Amino acid sequence: MKIRELIVDLYGCVADLNNSSWLTSVLESAAKEMGSTIVKTVSHNYSPIGITVILLLAETHISIHTWPQYKYAALDVFICSDEADPETAWNVVKAALKPASSKTREIHRQVT
Amino acid sequence: MKIRELIVDLYGCVADLNNSSWLTSVLESAAKEMGSTIVKTVSHNYSPIGITVILLLAETHISIHTWPQYKYAALDVFICSDEADPETAWNVVKAALKPASSKTREIHRQVT
Repeated sequence: MKIRELIVDLYGCVADLNNSSWLTSVLESAAKEMGSTIVKTVSHNYSPIGITVILLLAETHISIHTWPQYKYAALDVFICSDEADPETAWNVVKAALKPASSKTREIHRQVT
Repeated sequence: MKIRELIVDLYGCVADLNNSSWLTSVLESAAKEMGSTIVKTVSHNYSPIGITVILLLAETHISIHTWPQYKYAALDVFICSDEADPETAWNVVKAALKPASSKTREIHRQVT
């Protein structure tokens, strides 16, 4: 059983990072494209600006936190699955948020 | 503004890793001890076994995923704050779950 966590910093995003319903739909598309099952979705609008969206998945979770004032978003794709590939979700988010640059780190976690 | 993500693998946990209400209370205590504000809590019981609890915080999030059959838990403490220290939350979780061993990784994220 593979447990992988993809940690991505997105810089210079062209998209509106303060639109929670749109960001939620982006993450939901990312989860579906990866073949994941969405169990629960939570989101929050920070004051005065910034969004968090977290999808609790049958295969663990996806989270995004945005700092629109910096055009920055922090994406985590934590997946426990032999089939679902976190890279697939990241590619969907990348195409939607259109970062000028990004930094990706992949962490492998083991149950034993 | 510090953004730190503490990623911890807990092995050989003595505590009951399939008790979602107890795990939720542990994470809530961890968040409070760190001085964080809890915005929303979501949890899920996997079939036949395993729990996810995620706290959406004013300072981002804490998540835990458990695999009771392996006595393993995966904790993420993602904190955007100059005051709150993710180590404080980890110490609360450690005292509650009583792992025989653990592996900790700290990731610094930057908005620019």
